[in-house]
Amino acid sequence: MYKVKVTIKRRPSILDPQGTAIEKGAENLGLTNIKNTRIGKFIEFTVDINDKTKAKQEVENYCSKLLANPIMEDFEYTLSEWTPSEE
Amino acid sequence: MYKVKVTIKRRPSILDPQGTAIEKGAENLGLTNIKNTRIGKFIEFTVDINDKTKAKQEVENYCSKLLANPIMEDFEYTLSEWTPSEE
Repeated sequence: MYKVKVTIKRRPSILDPQGTAIEKGAENLGLTNIKNTRIGKFIEFTVDINDKTKAKQEVENYCSKLLANPIMEDFEYTLSEWTPSEE
Repeated sequence: MYKVKVTIKRRPSILDPQGTAIEKGAENLGLTNIKNTRIGKFIEFTVDINDKTKAKQEVENYCSKLLANPIMEDFEYTLSEWTPSEE
């Protein structure tokens, strides 16, 4: 079983209107030194497969078919062995 | 100037309906080994302050007042020195 952490970011060439909006909010609060805000996703899950190669396949399918938008976003992930009793 | 990476997660005790929904989608696609999906945010920005303590203050204000919901979410961040020419 593996614990997976995925980060999903918009490609650098793609505008991030949500980031721009929230940064405007920061400015209004007096936080004027914050720039280049980009909002992405951070997703955690477990994969109940013991073979690492197969687990990675499942993770990549999940990321590319459901979690990330392949047109606008890139994803990265880390996989670490995990047993349910740990948490 | 610092580059900041923030991850925001719902507290473990708080349900994540978005994670549950997307996991149901995975099941429908045949990805049946994915469990415990939790959706959070990953946010990057720069702080144009050279004093590290002051930069951290600005980051913590930004996170706690705008980026994260203090009732339901926890945030973590890393700060690294950064010059605009790097990218």
